[in-house]
Order: sequence, then C-alpha cells, then structure tokens
Amino acid sequence: MKQIIQTYIEANSRRFLDELFGLIRIPSISAEKKHKPDMQRAAEYWQKTLLNAGADRVELCPTDGNPIVYGEKIIDPHKPVVLVYAHYDVMPVDPLDEWLSPPFEPEIRDGKIYARGADDDKGQGFMHAKAFELMVCTGTLPCNVKFMIEGEEEIGSGSLVEWCKKNKERLHADIIIVSDTGMIAPDVPSITAGLRGLSYVEVEITGPNRDLHSGLYGGAIANPINVLCRMIAALHDADGRITIPGFYDDVQELPDNERARLAQAPFSLDKYQKALDIGQVQGEKGYSTTERTGIRPALDVNGIWGGYTEEGSKTVIPSKAFAKLSMRLAPNQDWQKITRLFTGYFERLAPASVKVKVTPHHGGPPYVSPIDSAAYRAAEQALTETFGTSPLPFRSGGSIPVIATFEEILGLKSILMGFGLGSDAIHSPNENYPLWNFFKGIETIPLFYANFTRYMGET
Amino acid sequence: MKQIIQTYIEANSRRFLDELFGLIRIPSISAEKKHKPDMQRAAEYWQKTLLNAGADRVELCPTDGNPIVYGEKIIDPHKPVVLVYAHYDVMPVDPLDEWLSPPFEPEIRDGKIYARGADDDKGQGFMHAKAFELMVCTGTLPCNVKFMIEGEEEIGSGSLVEWCKKNKERLHADIIIVSDTGMIAPDVPSITAGLRGLSYVEVEITGPNRDLHSGLYGGAIANPINVLCRMIAALHDADGRITIPGFYDDVQELPDNERARLAQAPFSLDKYQKALDIGQVQGEKGYSTTERTGIRPALDVNGIWGGYTEEGSKTVIPSKAFAKLSMRLAPNQDWQKITRLFTGYFERLAPASVKVKVTPHHGGPPYVSPIDSAAYRAAEQALTETFGTSPLPFRSGGSIPVIATFEEILGLKSILMGFGLGSDAIHSPNENYPLWNFFKGIETIPLFYANFTRYMGET
Repeated sequence: MKQIIQTYIEANSRRFLDELFGLIRIPSISAEKKHKPDMQRAAEYWQKTLLNAGADRVELCPTDGNPIVYGEKIIDPHKPVVLVYAHYDVMPVDPLDEWLSPPFEPEIRDGKIYARGADDDKGQGFMHAKAFELMVCTGTLPCNVKFMIEGEEEIGSGSLVEWCKKNKERLHADIIIVSDTGMIAPDVPSITAGLRGLSYVEVEITGPNRDLHSGLYGGAIANPINVLCRMIAALHDADGRITIPGFYDDVQELPDNERARLAQAPFSLDKYQKALDIGQVQGEKGYSTTERTGIRPALDVNGIWGGYTEEGSKTVIPSKAFAKLSMRLAPNQDWQKITRLFTGYFERLAPASVKVKVTPHHGGPPYVSPIDSAAYRAAEQALTETFGTSPLPFRSGGSIPVIATFEEILGLKSILMGFGLGSDAIHSPNENYPLWNFFKGIETIPLFYANFTRYMGET
Repeated sequence: MKQIIQTYIEANSRRFLDELFGLIRIPSISAEKKHKPDMQRAAEYWQKTLLNAGADRVELCPTDGNPIVYGEKIIDPHKPVVLVYAHYDVMPVDPLDEWLSPPFEPEIRDGKIYARGADDDKGQGFMHAKAFELMVCTGTLPCNVKFMIEGEEEIGSGSLVEWCKKNKERLHADIIIVSDTGMIAPDVPSITAGLRGLSYVEVEITGPNRDLHSGLYGGAIANPINVLCRMIAALHDADGRITIPGFYDDVQELPDNERARLAQAPFSLDKYQKALDIGQVQGEKGYSTTERTGIRPALDVNGIWGGYTEEGSKTVIPSKAFAKLSMRLAPNQDWQKITRLFTGYFERLAPASVKVKVTPHHGGPPYVSPIDSAAYRAAEQALTETFGTSPLPFRSGGSIPVIATFEEILGLKSILMGFGLGSDAIHSPNENYPLWNFFKGIETIPLFYANFTRYMGET
C-alpha cells in the first residue's frame, strides 16, 4: 500500500499544490466583516474539491455566520466512519508590512509554502481532501468518510456548535480526525494528546467623558490608559501566577510520573530562546517552559490601544482605553466559569475614578485525549510507518475549543494528528508550511484509515 | 478709546469671522507629515492678514521645519515694542467620528465656533491680528509691534528656538504677549502666571522577534504588552506620586501663603467631576485638584498600542508594544534632566525577558511670570476695564515650552493673557471658541497696548 500511495502522490503533486494555492488565494479572514463574500467563496472551493475527489454528495449548510461544508462518502454502512474536521477561515494578516510576500499570494521559498493559511488550516486541511481523493482513485478507501469543514474556527466556532446540535444524527461516526496542530520536530513525530481551553475577553476603561488636554488635566484625574495598565499589571503576581481569586481551583495537577514522561520530549531552552531572540523565558514559578504552555493556564494581552497612536506627539488624556485579553486554560478548568471570575475581579480592580466594561468574546473547554484507543494506536502506527520512528504524545498550548465541544455534543473523541512545525509562524506574518510536511501528511493519512479500520474490525 | 474700539469691532465683526474661518479651513496639523503643504498655506494666510492689517513688512522665514511668519510695524524707534507670539499649527483631529461637524469646516452653534484651532491657537492668535488692524485703522496704535507666528508649537517649537537664536537683534522688544491660554470663567478673568514644563517620550518594548500564537507560547514567554503595562504601572506609587528616583528633587514647593492665595480662585469639585462625568478625581496625595494641575508635576500615558486592535479577536502575542508618555513639570524642574531620569529608570524597570527603547520626543522648561511688572499691570488693568472685575493670577497646568525658551534666548518675559475657557475642548473633538470671548479679546488687547505704553513711559 505504501507504494500505491507514493506513486499517486508523485504523479499528482504539482496539481495538489495548484489546487491548494487556489484555496489560499481566497482571503477568508473570519474576524473581518468585509471578507464575508470570501467566506462563501472558500466554502464553495471546498465543496468543489470534495466533489472532484469522489464524495457522494457535498452540501453548503447555511448558518447565522459562515457556511459549513458537509460532505460524505458511504461505501458500506457496516464499516467504521471517520469524520474529518478542518476549517477554511484564517487569521487576520496584520502587521502587513512584515510579510516578505503578499499573504494571499502563495510563494514557495526554500521548500516552504509562504502564505496566510499555508499551515493553519488550509494546508493541513487540504491534506485530508487529497488523501481522500488518493484512496478513492486507488481503490484503497477502507471505510466511510464524512467531512465537516467550518469557517469560524479562528473566532470561536459559534455556528458550528449550533449546527452540530441540530445534525447529531448525520454526524454519527467512530472518530473525528483533525490536522490543525503541530508536531515536535520533523524527525520527532507526535500526536497532540491535550489542548488548552480558552476564554477571550475585551475590556474598556472609561475615564473622562471626552479626550482632554494632558497639560490642563494631567495629575488631577485618572488617565484611563494608566489605570488600564495598573489593572493589567495586577493580574499577575511576582511568581507569574494569575491573581484572579479561584482561578486555579479546578486546575488538574499532573502527577509526577506524567510530568516526567512529558519531560522526555526533546527541548532545548537555549535554542528556544535563540529562535525567539529573547534574553530569557518568563512564566509561572515551579514549572518548565514545556509545562507552562502544555499543562498550565496563562493570561495574555492580545491587543491594547488608547489615545494618540500616530506619528509624532499629542498631549491628550483619552476618554477611553481598550484591551483584548485571553486566558489559556488547563485541563478541568471551565471556560465559562473563568470568564465570570475574570469579569468580576476586573470590575473590582477598577478604581472609583473610572468605569469598566468587560465583553466576553468567545471561549472553549480544554481537551485531553486518551492514548490507548484504537484511533490513537492507528495514528501512532501510521506515523511510525511514514516517519520511521514512534510518535510521542504531546500537550499543546493551543486551543481548538470545538474539539471539547464535539465530545460534549456528539460524544466523539478526536484524534489530533497534526503535521505543522513550531517554525510555521501560524497567526504571524510569513506563515509557512514545508512542502515535505504537506506531502508527508497526505502519505500518512491513508495509513491511518487502514489501521483504524483494521483495529475497529478486531474489537 | 473704549467707544472707538467697540464701534470698529461692530462694523467689522462679520469680516473678522470670515477671515478667521479662512485660516481655520487650512488643516495645518504639524504632527502629520502629509499636511506639510498646509503649513505653508497657513503661514501665507497669516502673512497676507498682517500685511492687510497694516504691517510695514511681513516675511515668511524658512526653517528646517515649518516657516515662521515675521512681521513688524515700527512707528517710532523710541517707543516701546510689543512682540506678539502665536502659532498657526493645530493638533491632530482623531477620533474623527466624535466630531459633530467636520473639524476643518468651522460651524457656529450656540454662539460658539466649532472647529480644530477655533481656540488653540487660530482663534486666539487671530484676535491679535484684528486688534492690530483696529489700532492701525483707528489711529490708536501707541507703540511698535512685532509679530512672530510659528507652525510647530504642538510638536515642540524646534524650528522657532533655532530661529530665535539667529534673530535676537530683530526680535528686540519690551514684552512678549501671548493669547494661548485660558481664563478661569467668563466672569472670572485671569492672567496665567505660571506654566508647567514638559518632557514627552516614546517607549518601545520588544519581546519575541515576531508575533507569536498565544496558545502555543502563552505562559512561557514575556508578552511585551503585559510587560509594558507592569512598567507603566510601576511609574506611580499608591499615593499617586511618580516613582522615578530623583524626580521631585528640584520641584519648587510653594509657600503656604501662596498656596492659600491660589486656593481663592473659585473651584467646585462637584461641578468639575460632573462636567467630566467621573466618579472621583485622582492624583497626588496631599494636594488639591487645582494644585495638582497648577503647581505639581504629573505623568500621563498619551497613547498606547500593540497587538491586535481591530474588530473581533486574534490570539497573538505581539513582538512589540508601544506607548507615548509625557511628564508635566513644576517650576524649577529641568526637562532635559527629567528626560534622562525617566530614560534610565524605565530601562532599569524592564525585565531581562524584553528589550526596551526610549525615544525623547520634545520638551520644555516650566515658566513663572512676575505679577508686579508693567506688562502684568497693563494686562490686569485692560481686563478690569473690559470685564468689570479684576483678574486673578492663575497657574496653568499646560505647557508652552517656548515661553521659557524666550526668556532664556531673548531675555524677554511673556504676558499670558488668554481668553479660552475650560469648556473649549482644545486638543479634543469638537474644539470650540465662544464668539463672545473672541470679540472680548479683540476689545481688550488695544487697552493692553495703551496701558503698557503709558506704564513704560512712566518708568
């Protein structure tokens, strides 16, 4: 079977890339309303792709937000069903001037595709479309397949959650497979066994009812920017711990033996610091860098603005200051409870000289994957065959809130078999995805299907 | 003489406004490079205005920045010389959507001119041009007049300082008169007897060398926005005092009797808070609101930005975060020393996990005016005649850095006879200037000239 797979990939590699580039060229930024028509175009592109690959039928399901692409190929009702999840929306591209090539004009440099979405999640999602086509065309598809491709992953998957609730029956499956995560290194394959949850909020501090001259008023009234800075500073203590009362109450502490196992993954602090060009790392006292992102919660300001931000100077005390903040949550933390705790605490932090408004954006629960299931073993075996070395389980710091929601609504576990690298700069300027990883993914996925179908037959 | 003045103003009031509006319509924002051609146009408008008003000659003096308008009328070399200072540049207009009418299309509503520059300093400066015209046309000009109108007041008067150094001789005068300040209330005229100094800086915090995904890195590395907030928060202590070591060393403490005298100016904390719609004032412990702006230094963030600031959400840890900060300085503080103290302290505040860059923007020394000089008494007498009540000396919190520089370079004191009101919203959206104040200024200025010439003759 490996020979069949490699022959098909080699014969079609150029077309695979051309088709992926067509998807990448659609600027489907879900966070920006002006791209609404592009969301529809990206969904239609996926529909066409799945139909051409051999799906029985592919539907564009309207939602209150962006459409969901649902497709399926049922070869035998008695065989297992693999449900593929991916997303066609991408992150905004600012700061635009840091891109070496236009974000929506894919360019290959040094064996990597450079473009917004090259990895997350157009590149990784498209591997599944092409692996599916490969299995159909080579007669090696061993089971039934369903596709569920959404357009709001980067803004919280709100429409997908509602849609799943209404479509439980047709989403019946044995496993969900997702490639929207990374692996430790090209020679260290890994399967993501945990994801952090997320609570994303926006805060607004109002001081005076209008912008004021900082000379005439400076020193006598609360400046909302200074106040906001003090409030944000107060969210961490000197040990790097989050100060919100009750914040850590539900955090699942990992037993020492599990911590020891996670510590086996190769990690060089020196290389990490050099790659980011930072003098030193910084985080919660008592935990390693890998633990700080993998199993511990975090609170970051993702954006801040207020007052005069153009060139030159303006002596103003602005009426308002704003920030976007997000909290990454450890296993067992409830994101809605955390959002409430944050809101109450932040409101209490504000002095009487200002007004404060907290607006929750979106969020999602953390997720932990079992590492002894048929799906996990199938992925482990597939990766071992294509990489020549057994993959490690890995706790990722990222969040795919919908993964935990799938479990809640559909009762389905997900297998997170990602092929991205830490250097792919997802969400950043110059996002990229190595061609090697793209084709390695297409090569590995059919083996997962074969292994999974076999293991399911054995049970 | 009061009759002559009033008759002339009444006969020409409509034309005065038309001409002022012509100046206001030129968007001469010195902080924004794209308005470079508008700076030239505004200077030429002033040149034409002074020539038409009766100046002997008016020159546009080129500088490295915006041109300086210099004009004069010498009626008798033995008579005193009054040097008028004003500026034709204005502040930026953002946030534009808060303006009820376009900032550069003056509109009269409720007896007030609404426009950027209506008060600061096109409206107030223009009063001097029209009072000059009035004195020339009615044969009441009692002394020599020189005009020095610059285009960089809002960005630090850099070119004017250099130009003054080179033109000491022709700037020979007995007093500088300036209307670029406010009065306590329409029925409480005042003369500004003190101005705070200024040090304006920009800071840049660099964390990782690129924007990062906040899920994959959050908790493990220093987020430059969080760090910047902590550093800004650390600039004040719990008593509202600035924590920079040595910051208060040179601050001139006002003797109790002078504090008592300043406290006589009418001030309602309740009205102040209501007008700004704030729950309570906030400032340095141990000082009143008037003292906090009048005689005490202050530190305010004038702008802050970093990360994702558009609609929606983006889970990013930005590479950089920025802020613009300014410090208002009390009498006797040296702004260049303060800039150095700030820079050193801010650099030391930064943890090893980030890089910090401090860029000084501009600054200027504080200024204190004597209240027993001929010029002060001339202004006091003129205001008493037109307002029917004796003006109070007032310590303003604002800065006109160039005023102290005039004293240093030209050896000249300035008399700060401003007609603005606290409600004029200078530097803010919907800046305005009441017609009553505009015409009251034109009425008062010729009386100042008459009194000043008489007092100077008496000495």
